[in-house]
Amino acid sequence: MTGDNLARVSVAIGFIGLGVMGAPMAARLLAAGHKVKVYNRSAHRCGPLVSAGAEAAATPMAAAVGSEIVISMVTDSPDVEAVLLGADGAASGASSGALFIDMSTIAPEAARRVAGSLRARGIAFLDAPVTGGDIGARDGTLSILVGGDAADLDRARSVFSVLGKTITHCGPSGAGQTTKACNQILCALNMVGLVEALSLAKAGGIDQKVMLGALGAGAGGSWALANLGPRIVNGDFAPGFMIKLIQKDLRIVRGLAEPLSLPLDGTALAQRFFADNEQHGEGALGTQAMYKVLQRLVGA
Amino acid sequence: MTGDNLARVSVAIGFIGLGVMGAPMAARLLAAGHKVKVYNRSAHRCGPLVSAGAEAAATPMAAAVGSEIVISMVTDSPDVEAVLLGADGAASGASSGALFIDMSTIAPEAARRVAGSLRARGIAFLDAPVTGGDIGARDGTLSILVGGDAADLDRARSVFSVLGKTITHCGPSGAGQTTKACNQILCALNMVGLVEALSLAKAGGIDQKVMLGALGAGAGGSWALANLGPRIVNGDFAPGFMIKLIQKDLRIVRGLAEPLSLPLDGTALAQRFFADNEQHGEGALGTQAMYKVLQRLVGA
Repeated sequence: MTGDNLARVSVAIGFIGLGVMGAPMAARLLAAGHKVKVYNRSAHRCGPLVSAGAEAAATPMAAAVGSEIVISMVTDSPDVEAVLLGADGAASGASSGALFIDMSTIAPEAARRVAGSLRARGIAFLDAPVTGGDIGARDGTLSILVGGDAADLDRARSVFSVLGKTITHCGPSGAGQTTKACNQILCALNMVGLVEALSLAKAGGIDQKVMLGALGAGAGGSWALANLGPRIVNGDFAPGFMIKLIQKDLRIVRGLAEPLSLPLDGTALAQRFFADNEQHGEGALGTQAMYKVLQRLVGA
Repeated sequence: MTGDNLARVSVAIGFIGLGVMGAPMAARLLAAGHKVKVYNRSAHRCGPLVSAGAEAAATPMAAAVGSEIVISMVTDSPDVEAVLLGADGAASGASSGALFIDMSTIAPEAARRVAGSLRARGIAFLDAPVTGGDIGARDGTLSILVGGDAADLDRARSVFSVLGKTITHCGPSGAGQTTKACNQILCALNMVGLVEALSLAKAGGIDQKVMLGALGAGAGGSWALANLGPRIVNGDFAPGFMIKLIQKDLRIVRGLAEPLSLPLDGTALAQRFFADNEQHGEGALGTQAMYKVLQRLVGA
């Protein structure tokens, strides 16, 4: 291998989970010159990536065979445990010295459990959930929140740098997931503030666009106000990030907080608002649809 | 008057209320070349401004005599009504055609009531509460939220431009105050999210500074996180903006929402957290001291 090649090493990657986030992430890894083997439960989602040069794997195990790094991007803790540790799971096909990276959002405890099971089989593991949504996945501007050994993070950097612009080592196994849980608290409560402020503006006769413009640069400003406020005002409740997914994440938050005896009343309130959305069949709308809950309360 | 002079007209201003906000605002108006007469309940606070060229007035009425514009910057609705409409109030000394501008944060209904009383006496009125704190007052970077007639706002622009960088006409009388109420909801709920996220980080073994750095640029980001998050981590609970003042403002919010039958559960929760601060003698700390409430709940 020459010095030139060292500057851009092609890594053999197994990629499991080609959903809204996973598909564009796998596409970026391919485009960056990595050798990518893809697996998805619904096999038809592999098509566009195979056309772009990926190899399709029939099982998570097959995706792991010959891969230096295996990335999983699925929905919840049981999904991660199944695709990594289950029958035909990636662990069964892992090469010696492989590094597994789970970028799903799951419970920190589940991440630590997976890390322990993999370690017992000689496989290194990082939890590396992300923020930044499908746009960040497409543009490679995700924030990646990493839990695990610093040496393993160093092995993953050339891959992470294709996917994200902020890569933070949050601590040992599970710390990436705990930090992601903190992020979901922030998103949920900033949304509560936004929808209460917009509701008061409407009820009080203030033009909501004027309100957003007047307050966005000040001490009440937030990413939610700047990015989701205008969508609410325009009646655009398409996801962004789905209510049923933030509800899953807030259950992780509560599951984390309860054994720590940490009461999170604000988070619980946001959960109740989103639960009202779900009861009204709005679980697949974006989180900004929390606004609809308050509008129902005032009969609007 | 020559064309040159028209570019920078010196306005005769009466300024009532020289507190943390009022004193630097009056100083900026003086420095910009306006003729400023100052009144404060505790007269000694006039001293530095008189040294800088202001004239001291013994009563709000005296501050209004000969003033084209009278600005009030006091604490609450009764204070505004007293200094403008009470015995020796500014209205008793007002010149014909004077414009009164109240920049305090008070109830929209009180602002409308004051506007009506002044209108009956031939005095124009704007409610023009601000955001941006004492730093914004010093630097002339306040956001000014204006309620009243557009023509009166135009008369005030040369004065407002010395004090703020964002000047928004929010609507008729009271609309500035209603928009300010929306801002206080945002500040309160963004704080709830911040202190719950920081509390989970601490309980979950995450370095809080690392968490703030990893999440600040993402979808959980807010002015509160960027500016008050580091203060919390450093144990700095000095005000910024005092808890007892945001509590006053949140009472205004609730007073506005209740007759509109608008339940604001998030805002109510923030009030309860801040009430716990007040019960522990922390009303004069900055709003970021809400963190102490959560730490008490976990016995930290």
